[in-house]
Parts: sequence; structure tokens; C-alpha cells
Amino acid sequence: MIVLLHSDAEEDSIEVARTLDYLKNLPGIRLQKHIVKGKAQQLTEIYLIGDTKKLSKEEIEALPAVERVVRISEEYRILGRHKDDRRSIGFTYNGVLFDQDTINVFAGLCAVDNAENVELMMKALKENGQVCTRMGAYKPRTNPYSFQGHGKECLPYVFELAGKYGIKIISMEVTHESHIEEIDSCLERTGRPTGVMLQIGTRNTQNFELLKAVGRQSEYPVLLKRGYGITLNESLNAAEYLASEGNANVIFCLRGMKTSFASPHRNMVDFAQVPLVKRLTRMPVCIDPSHSVGSRERAPDGIPDLLHATAQGVIAGANMILVDFHPDPAKALVDGPQALLLEELPHFLEDVRVVREAYEERLRIVRTMAASS
Amino acid sequence: MIVLLHSDAEEDSIEVARTLDYLKNLPGIRLQKHIVKGKAQQLTEIYLIGDTKKLSKEEIEALPAVERVVRISEEYRILGRHKDDRRSIGFTYNGVLFDQDTINVFAGLCAVDNAENVELMMKALKENGQVCTRMGAYKPRTNPYSFQGHGKECLPYVFELAGKYGIKIISMEVTHESHIEEIDSCLERTGRPTGVMLQIGTRNTQNFELLKAVGRQSEYPVLLKRGYGITLNESLNAAEYLASEGNANVIFCLRGMKTSFASPHRNMVDFAQVPLVKRLTRMPVCIDPSHSVGSRERAPDGIPDLLHATAQGVIAGANMILVDFHPDPAKALVDGPQALLLEELPHFLEDVRVVREAYEERLRIVRTMAASS
Amino acid sequence: MIVLLHSDAEEDSIEVARTLDYLKNLPGIRLQKHIVKGKAQQLTEIYLIGDTKKLSKEEIEALPAVERVVRISEEYRILGRHKDDRRSIGFTYNGVLFDQDTINVFAGLCAVDNAENVELMMKALKENGQVCTRMGAYKPRTNPYSFQGHGKECLPYVFELAGKYGIKIISMEVTHESHIEEIDSCLERTGRPTGVMLQIGTRNTQNFELLKAVGRQSEYPVLLKRGYGITLNESLNAAEYLASEGNANVIFCLRGMKTSFASPHRNMVDFAQVPLVKRLTRMPVCIDPSHSVGSRERAPDGIPDLLHATAQGVIAGANMILVDFHPDPAKALVDGPQALLLEELPHFLEDVRVVREAYEERLRIVRTMAASS
Amino acid sequence: MIVLLHSDAEEDSIEVARTLDYLKNLPGIRLQKHIVKGKAQQLTEIYLIGDTKKLSKEEIEALPAVERVVRISEEYRILGRHKDDRRSIGFTYNGVLFDQDTINVFAGLCAVDNAENVELMMKALKENGQVCTRMGAYKPRTNPYSFQGHGKECLPYVFELAGKYGIKIISMEVTHESHIEEIDSCLERTGRPTGVMLQIGTRNTQNFELLKAVGRQSEYPVLLKRGYGITLNESLNAAEYLASEGNANVIFCLRGMKTSFASPHRNMVDFAQVPLVKRLTRMPVCIDPSHSVGSRERAPDGIPDLLHATAQGVIAGANMILVDFHPDPAKALVDGPQALLLEELPHFLEDVRVVREAYEERLRIVRTMAASS
Repeated sequence: MIVLLHSDAEEDSIEVARTLDYLKNLPGIRLQKHIVKGKAQQLTEIYLIGDTKKLSKEEIEALPAVERVVRISEEYRILGRHKDDRRSIGFTYNGVLFDQDTINVFAGLCAVDNAENVELMMKALKENGQVCTRMGAYKPRTNPYSFQGHGKECLPYVFELAGKYGIKIISMEVTHESHIEEIDSCLERTGRPTGVMLQIGTRNTQNFELLKAVGRQSEYPVLLKRGYGITLNESLNAAEYLASEGNANVIFCLRGMKTSFASPHRNMVDFAQVPLVKRLTRMPVCIDPSHSVGSRERAPDGIPDLLHATAQGVIAGANMILVDFHPDPAKALVDGPQALLLEELPHFLEDVRVVREAYEERLRIVRTMAASS
Repeated sequence: MIVLLHSDAEEDSIEVARTLDYLKNLPGIRLQKHIVKGKAQQLTEIYLIGDTKKLSKEEIEALPAVERVVRISEEYRILGRHKDDRRSIGFTYNGVLFDQDTINVFAGLCAVDNAENVELMMKALKENGQVCTRMGAYKPRTNPYSFQGHGKECLPYVFELAGKYGIKIISMEVTHESHIEEIDSCLERTGRPTGVMLQIGTRNTQNFELLKAVGRQSEYPVLLKRGYGITLNESLNAAEYLASEGNANVIFCLRGMKTSFASPHRNMVDFAQVPLVKRLTRMPVCIDPSHSVGSRERAPDGIPDLLHATAQGVIAGANMILVDFHPDPAKALVDGPQALLLEELPHFLEDVRVVREAYEERLRIVRTMAASS
Repeated sequence: MIVLLHSDAEEDSIEVARTLDYLKNLPGIRLQKHIVKGKAQQLTEIYLIGDTKKLSKEEIEALPAVERVVRISEEYRILGRHKDDRRSIGFTYNGVLFDQDTINVFAGLCAVDNAENVELMMKALKENGQVCTRMGAYKPRTNPYSFQGHGKECLPYVFELAGKYGIKIISMEVTHESHIEEIDSCLERTGRPTGVMLQIGTRNTQNFELLKAVGRQSEYPVLLKRGYGITLNESLNAAEYLASEGNANVIFCLRGMKTSFASPHRNMVDFAQVPLVKRLTRMPVCIDPSHSVGSRERAPDGIPDLLHATAQGVIAGANMILVDFHPDPAKALVDGPQALLLEELPHFLEDVRVVREAYEERLRIVRTMAASS
Repeated sequence: MIVLLHSDAEEDSIEVARTLDYLKNLPGIRLQKHIVKGKAQQLTEIYLIGDTKKLSKEEIEALPAVERVVRISEEYRILGRHKDDRRSIGFTYNGVLFDQDTINVFAGLCAVDNAENVELMMKALKENGQVCTRMGAYKPRTNPYSFQGHGKECLPYVFELAGKYGIKIISMEVTHESHIEEIDSCLERTGRPTGVMLQIGTRNTQNFELLKAVGRQSEYPVLLKRGYGITLNESLNAAEYLASEGNANVIFCLRGMKTSFASPHRNMVDFAQVPLVKRLTRMPVCIDPSHSVGSRERAPDGIPDLLHATAQGVIAGANMILVDFHPDPAKALVDGPQALLLEELPHFLEDVRVVREAYEERLRIVRTMAASS
């Protein structure tokens, strides 16, 4: 870690003295001072040598004489991409491969309302050759008086129906560590007819205790959504919490950012960061167009904005799609207006297929270009 | 709840049909339709009659023909201020009164590092006539490899030293429901030498499971910090979660908002919302100048920005101040650069006293004006 | 325009009285009052009848008893899409058609540095079959001491070289009304070898005097970039300024939004709003991937983020692409690091072609679906 | 300027080669390379020697191998505070002193509507001992169809009435350079009965051509408002544009930031940055509570939020207050709901006086503390 002092910080000033005092007292850290002379000014740098991992860049940058701090150790130790990194990327769960080259669609119910709708949903998935879905049992809601999901009560029929229709993986949000056990024991009781991907929502991205609990188990892979109001770097660090506890089977989900610039969309679609997350980390990247766009409105070209947003993720190499469908959105208990209709599923899948093929064609082009140059 | 359709939505359009279908199927809700004719256009309104509390305004606003939804039921049922509301405001805990008229200072350690510093801090508080403090035992950190607080290990000496120096209340962040029990049993074991206010941090403002757990106990009052990246309304709803579970002894804390406009301050000071929170709810309002400002830098007038921010909260009627001090900020394990020095405590308190007197003088003026008009 | 009063606003309260007084005094507006009774509450609505176009929704919403205001008159009168709107969309300039169905690429120099580079750029465009380009002569820069563009000095060689290489349209930013005249007279002097699209940058989106001046001429079409820090609605209103002065040949350009969520990209790519702008207005929609992404970094799949962002715009139906190239980015005077290399132009165009074909395939699918349902 | 390469950037990598190529070609810049070895890693730094003022930090930071760039030259050359800076601060205009120690109130009309209201306003100011005011003649409006101000038509009576009531300075927004001449010639014609401070609004903060035009004259001082959606640093650079053209009599105005966190206030009050601007520059700092808060709502303590916000600026040392009043806000053509009533002027001034006294008491305390330590 390197601490750069302000160019106008005088050697014998009180600011420099206080800064050096602070740094000298950092436990287990040795200082090395460099003076660099420019034409008209000179710069002082302090190198911190030792285990600087625990030091806070932000705190040191707030010292009076400090211009900036550069951390030269690596970030995202486990999930990140590092120089000369030959570690494998991705994982297989219940027969489905997740990595940075594949794509899997998880269409399903944002919130489970009743067994009938679950069955209609799963039947439609099977008819369309799908083996993954999303099913919300535990729903975090802004208002304490809103419907909070059916919780563990609905798990038995959800799992049994999944088995009946050949669904291999259900992405399911958990908001409390006890939900892991509830899911696990219900799967056990019902004979493990399907698998579960534990989903952590945007309000819990920095609920570190939940991340630790989910990270301590390695039975179920994890889908972590990007957090509200924090930087991408902070959300990627949250993913690293999961890995640091032992579970590196993590998929990172972009779901739109809350900002006034998004309106009339619900959130600001952030899928241009798909390639960014793939470059910074080894995680497969999921997109959630439903929560990003928040409506079924169509462009004048006849294509719903939601399909346009999905296409934007896929054309940039997204590896997973989480998307809300509902047999009867008007009666959905949560987020009905953004759910697609079951009869729109074939169109949705066809649209994804066409765009994915274009992505693969783009890959062939770039490889040809590289080979010929 | 009133649903206003777009002025150009035609009676027999598919959008209107779909919207009405959706609304008709809302359980327990009856519709009433009003057509209003203007000079050049007409407007259709649908009144939803029945228990509309559970309906999501956002979801209905996303229906194809809907212009806007107006909720006419009350928000923040328990903690809000309502028409003709005569419910009392505030509470007393361990002999200290918290309401919208008083002011209490909680100066202390952002993170407990060792017993020696805890004792130095508490001694300084006693010498300056203070009976409240902040002490961080459980620390949520962005990076999983950063220091995470001493946790329950430090509680015994923290509580005993509090008792020794006459501290009546310690504000202490909890990040997991088990921390409540850890704090309670340690207090019990040590003979309840002091009291604790359970603090919920900005990363957990929408950790609803934690809110519910903290809300289910009524022994300890709660300090809830405003959340990152969400609206004030959403943070106030989070406070309502605590109340809806039974604990209405809640203080709401403004702590600055994360935005690029704040730089070079750490966060954007949001203390202009002190009067807003007091008008919308019956909660006392706390300010956290340390996390807002994030440094000890001084203005050319010789006063640290941190004291200026504090003064801004106090002059607008803040009821509580949470502020970081440290006997030796250079060695603090967390947020050292924003901590004030123990020898600055008398100045800090004197500054708060002068500004609070000015606030009280402002109150006298407005009352005189009102009486004479 | 409809003014909804707070549900708890009492008929005889001072708030209601003040609100009504204010509304009654609005010139040329007649009021009509409606009382609507719900089960537990009642709501008062005031209809404003007359020419409400000039009234400010925001100002009326700030009146003490007002819950919300609904405007039922139309926005974006000239450029917007309205009910039963049969007005034509788009325009042809210098033989090039711009509408919501076509796509045109404007690759070129962010800032003109010298005639040699202009010629290299235009030659490459010609070789790749391009007839449009971007050339920056007037550069607004954050820092007053930065290079501000060569201004009118460079126009003669820019226009002559354009003529030489068959370029029909140059998109060129203007920051002062005098630039229109400078461009026009230079074109005249050089024999109108090419055409110009007047570009208004993000810092001038709400420079209404410039918009009016540019709108008063109808010789040159206009490319208006979305503004920093304002809503999409406000930027679309800025476009309406151009049209309200007489020039409706306006293309709207999405160029990324400044927010801390974008990092490490330069801005947050906002191309998911391409379908939104097409639905709200009749303007063709341009994307500016260079300023959005801000670097030439590549994803692990070998494709630069900048091409991914471009593809995201194109797959959603973007009608124009503004993109920075440079014969030698290392020597570019402005924004060098985000410029693509001339030798990357064929790859860029091929990538756009593949993605555009996929978009057209998506259109065929949605039309087939619509026809068969 | 110092360019720090990524710690994992290899000497012979293509990224490093490309980065060095770029830097080597910067005109008039010489490179100096430093390799710094840490325990586990090494870092490369490139020093750019020569006139680095024109280089863009952002552009160099976007080079492939670059971790970060540190600029060691000074920012805000003319208006900034620099080491060992002994230049005077502030200026006197028409007998009124503006610096970082004084405070001046500019209460007045956001938009001039008619001579009667102008006279009522000025009479009230005189009765309350005020010699400054604000009067809006040129109004930039989001919607092209909204009232745009009376422009030069109203100047004669505004200036004459100012003279009649002893007003020495009117702060007046200009949105086009021609307004300077209109104001100047009207003042000349009317015998210069008053003075004018040219105000530049938030939508024009980065309208560099307007800044240059206003900066080229030195007759009138300038009030520059902070810009929408840009950082504080960028707005301060805009002020430097004025100074770089010759007019350093600039006052910087904080007016609240547009963000969804502000609601239900109109903008997010940013007055905690008063001390920040005073530390970074030598400009006096103005606050605009009317546009920040946007309403006349009162806190439960009886004090309007607008007065609370004003007090927050004053208690932190603000040097000027721009505040909207109106004889009859219900009839105001612009921003009526946020205007205070004329009869509230004495209360407003008394409130400011009390808070200013508290600020001065705070100054005495900090000086006593400093003297005794």
C-alpha cells in the first residue's frame, strides 16, 4: 500500500507529523519514505510494508496530509481474476453447468401464491424445455403491512411439483439463515425432487451475517444480487464474503440501480456491466430484467422493453436470466405488472435464442480478427 | 386508494380492459368509477374501496392505462403523526428522556479496541458530565478480510466500566439477532451496571428479519440509521417494522447519504431533514456527524467541518448526537481519521451547548411571533 | 389538470383555505370541486379548467393541502407521440434518412487535432463505405486551462476533406450560437462539400438560449444529448425547446449518466432507454458508447466493453451511433483512451451489422407472433 | 503528475507498452520511471515532468495499465487557496463588502411579475434595513411553454424602484450574454440608481461560453450557482472559468442537489459544504434555501423548514443568503409555493441574526481554545 502526501504538505508541518504518527503506529507495518522531485514541486510517498490487507484505504486517505492511497494487494481474493490465474471458473449443480460461457434461463414466479399457479408455471416450463425456475417463498417488502410471502408453508408443493415437471433448480430468495434449514429439511422430506439456488436480494447484499451463514454451507449454490445505493466494488466484496466462508459457487446478479434517471422504468438497467463483472471476477453473471424495467410496456417496434433489456444482457454475454412470469399477473400478490404471461414464454425464449446466436457470432468474429492480426 | 387513468386512455381500449380486469380481481376490493370531463379532455378515475393497505401503489401504477395512484390511507401507522393525533411522543430509558424536544449526546468509540481505551473514553465522559456513550462491538465491514469487531468478548469490560463511570446508556450496533441475547445475558451477569440502546446500521436498514427480531423485544430502545440508496420514506417504513412488532421506542438517525456530490466529504450531510422526520413521524431524531463528514479537517475559521455539521443538526432541533471520539485515533481499528480527540470533548460539548441555546432562542422567537399575530 | 388534496385535509382548515385561495387566483383558470367518499375517508379534488399548460405542477404540489397533481394535457407537444397521432416520423438530410427504423453510424474524431488525422479518419470511413462522421471543433472542457478545440480555424480543411472523401454529414458540437454562423459561412465559402448536424452536448442540454438559437434555423438538423443530473423527462423537454422554435429535425442522444454506480466505467450506460424514448417521442434515438464506457478495455471474451455497449443499443433498436475513433489515440488531445483505432473500424462495423441483423430478426419474430395471435 | 501502474502490470505486457507509448507521445512532457518493490509485489510509477496542466487525469487513468493518476499541480489557480497564499479574499461592490467573514441577505422576488409587487418588496426591504435584493427578469424554465420572465421590459422600473428604496445591489440571473448589455445600458439610462450582481443558474453552471462572456466584464460581480448532477470540484472549476477571463469577484452559491434522497424536500440541502468551499477556495459562499427546500412547510416546533435550512447555512459561516419572498405567493408566476410572505421578513431576519450571533460565539470559543492550547 502506498500513501501519497499532498504536494504542498511541508516536511515539518503538523499535518505531516500527525499523518506519520498515525502510520507509524499501525500494527505490524513498516514504513519506507520516498521523496520525488518534479520540476516545480516535490512529492512525498510513504510505502506501507507488511500485511496491509486489514488497513482501510478510506481511513488513511482521510489523514490530514494524505492525497491518495494506492493498494497494491489484490481484491476479491477468492472470486476475483488475478494475474496468471489458472483457477477454474464456474460449477455444475444438479446437472446444470454455470460458468462465464453458458447461459441459463430461470423463468418463474416472483412470489408463490398458490399450488395451482405453481403447477401452471412449471408445466409451461417443461413444455418449453426448461429445467430451471424461480419461486419466491420468502418476500422482503418495504412496507411491514404488505404480503410477506407464504414462507415454508409452500415449500412442499413447490418442490413436489418441480419434481413432477423435471425442474432441476429453483432459485429461491432467503432472508434469514433459518430459511436454509427449512429448505434443506423440506427437500429431504420430499425426497430431493429438485435442487435449490439460494438467492440473496438487493436489500440484504450487505447483510453480512446472512452472507456468512449462507457461505458456510456448500450444498446449495448462491445467487447474489447487486446492492442498492452502493458501488459495484462493494457488491463484489459482498460476494467475496460468501466465498471467504467456504462457498465459492456464487453467481452475481445485475438487477438495475435505483436512481431518478431511470424513470419511467423502475430501475436503471445496468447490464453494460456484464462484461465488467466477468473481467473483475470469475463469477457467472445473471441479469434480472423484470426488476430493472418493472413493466410490460412495449416499444413502437412491438417488442416489450423487458425483452429489449433482456436482449441487452444476452448480447453482452450474460450467463443467466432471472425473469418473472405469472399465469395471471393481474392476480399476482407481488410485482404483477412486471410479470410476463405464460403464453409469452415461447416468444421470450425464441428472442433469447436469436440474440444468443448473435452473441456467439460476435465471438467468432472477434476470434477471427484476433487470429488474423 | 384512487387510480387515475391516462387522459388519452380510451374506454374500449385493450389497456383499459386489462387494467380493469386486474383491479376487479384484487381480493376484497370493490371498484367505483368516475368520469370527469374537462374542456378538452376527460379523465377516468377508479376508486378502490376496502382494505387497500396491502395493495402496492407501485404495482398498480405500472398497469398499462394508469397515470398515477393516490393512497388515501395513512402511512407509518404506529410511528407516524396523524391528524388529530394525541398520542404521546418519546420515552424514558434508564432515567434518560428521549423525545422531539430534548437533546442527548452519545460520544464514544466507533469500535471497541481494548479496555484501556474504553476506560479513557468513559472517564472523559464522566468528567464532562455525560451519561451516554456509543461503543461498537459488532462491526459490519465492506471487506470480509477487515477487522470485524471484538463482539461479545468485549461486552463484560465495556459494561463494567460503564457502571464504574456512571454511564446509563450505551448505543451499540447489532448485526444479528443473537447479539441481543448476548448483550442481555452479559448485562444480567454483570448486574446491569448500565443500559443499552440497540443500534441498527445503514447496511441493515432493510434487513427486515433483524428489524423484526429487534422489534419483538421491548427491553431495549432502538436507534435505526437511515439506509443507503433508498428514499427517506423507505427508511421510515423500516422503522415502522420495529414498531409493528411491538417496540415503538425508536430513534431515527440521519447519517449522511452516499453520493458523488458529497466529495471531499465522506457522505452528503442530510441534517436538513431533521425537521422533516419530526413532521412525518413522532420519533426523536438523531444525527451522526462523524460518518457524514468523515474527517477532522477544519474550515479556515478554525472550526472542524465535523463540528459545523453537528451545529447544523442542533440548530434545526436534532434530539440526539452520535459522535466518534478516540483516545488515540491513529491507532483506532475502524474509522480513526474521523474520530475527535478526547481533549476535544469539552470544546465539542461547549459548541453544542451554544448552538442548542440559539435553537431555543429561535423557538422563543417563533412562539412570540405566533402569539402576536 | 387535477389537484388532489390530502385525505386528512379538513374543509375548514387554514391549509385548504390557503390552497384554494392560491388556485382561485390563477389567471384564466376556473375551479371545479369534487368530494369523493371512501369507506373510512373522503377525498377532495379540484379540477383546473382552462389553459393549464403554463401552470407548474411542481409549484401546485407544494401547496399545503395538496397531495398530488395530475396533468391531463399533453407533454412534448411537437416531438411527442400522441393518441391518434398520424404525423410522420423522421427526416432526410443530405440524402441520408433518419427515423425510428433506420440506423446510421457516425464514427469520427471527438476533437479535431490536425488535418492529417482528419484525412486519415475520412479515408478510413470511405474505405468502409461510411458517409457520416463526427468531428469536434468546439470543445467544452471542465477545466478552463484544458485544450478547448481548434474552433472555426479547422472548419475549412474539415469540410474540404469531407467533400473529398464523400462524407455527407458531419456531426459537430456547437457551444455558442455564433458557431452556427461560422459553420454556415464556412460551408458556403467551401461550396457546401458536405452537410453538418449541429450537436448540443450534455453540459448545454438546458442552455435554453442556445437551444432557441439552434431551433430558430432549419437548415441543419440537431443532435441533442441527454443532460447531466436531470431526469429523462427534463431532457426530452429540452428537445421540445428546439421544436418549439421551429426545428423539429431533432435526434435524441443517450450518452450515459454520471453516477457512482458506473465505476469503473466512466458513466452508467443508459441504452435500455432507447425503446422508452421511441415510445414517448417521435425522435430517432442515438447512442454514444464512447462517452458512456470511457475506455478500450476488453471483456474476457475478447470483445471491448465499448462494442458490448454499442451492441446493447443496436439490439434494442438504436437509430444512430456516435463513436470516437482516432488514428493515434495516444496523441489525441481529448478523450484519447476511449477512442477506437482506425484498424478496428471494420470490426466495429461488422459487429454492428451482425447485431442489427439480430434486431431485425427479432422484429420479424414479434410480427409473426402478433399476426398469429 | 504521477501515473501509478497496476501492481500486476507486467513490464513486457502489451498494456504497459501501450500505456508508455501514449505517455511518451504527450507533447512537451518528459517521463521518469520508478520501480518500487514491496514485500510481495512491486509497483511502477511514471512521473510526467513538464507542463502537465493541460493533461486530463481522467483520460490517462483510462489507459490499460494505469491504476491511478495523482496531479501535483494546483487546482483553481486564481480562486483557490494555495500554500503560503497571501492574496486578499473578497471584494467591495457598491459599498457592500463580500468576503468569507461577512454575511449579506438578498431577499427578493424569484421572478418579477409586475411593478407593484417589486415596489411592495423593496419597500419591505427598506423598512427592514436591507440594501440588497434578488429580482428575476430572465427565467430559464424546464418546459418551453412555461412563463420565461419579463426580460428587459421590466428592468427600468426594477432599477428605478431599487433607487427609490435605497437598494444597492440586485442579484439578477442572466442566461445569455446579451443580458449583460441590456442590464448595463438600462442602468446607464436610468442613472445607475442601483448595482447588479450577475447570477448564473444551475442549468448554466457549465455553459462555458456564458461564463467566459460574464468573466470578460469586470463591472459586475458574479454569483455562480452550483451545477446539477456534477461534482463540487466541477462546479468550482466553472467558477475558475470566470476568473480565468478576468473577473475574480465571484461568489459561489450552494442551492441543493437534485437526488431522490431529498424528497419530500425539493432538493437535498448541501450547506454542510459551506466550510468545504471556504477551505478549497477564497470565494465567499452563498446559500439558497428557497430552491433547496422548495416549500413553506413548518416543523412541529413551529419553524418553517426553510428557516431551518437557512440557519444551517448561517451556523456554519455562510456569507450570503439568497431567499425568495413574494407579496402574494399564490399569484407568483414562478415558484410561488416556496416564497416566504413579506410579513415573515422581520422574523426571517431576526432568526438569521440570532443564528449569526451563535456562529460568532462559536468563533470566539474556538479562538479561545486555540489560544489556551
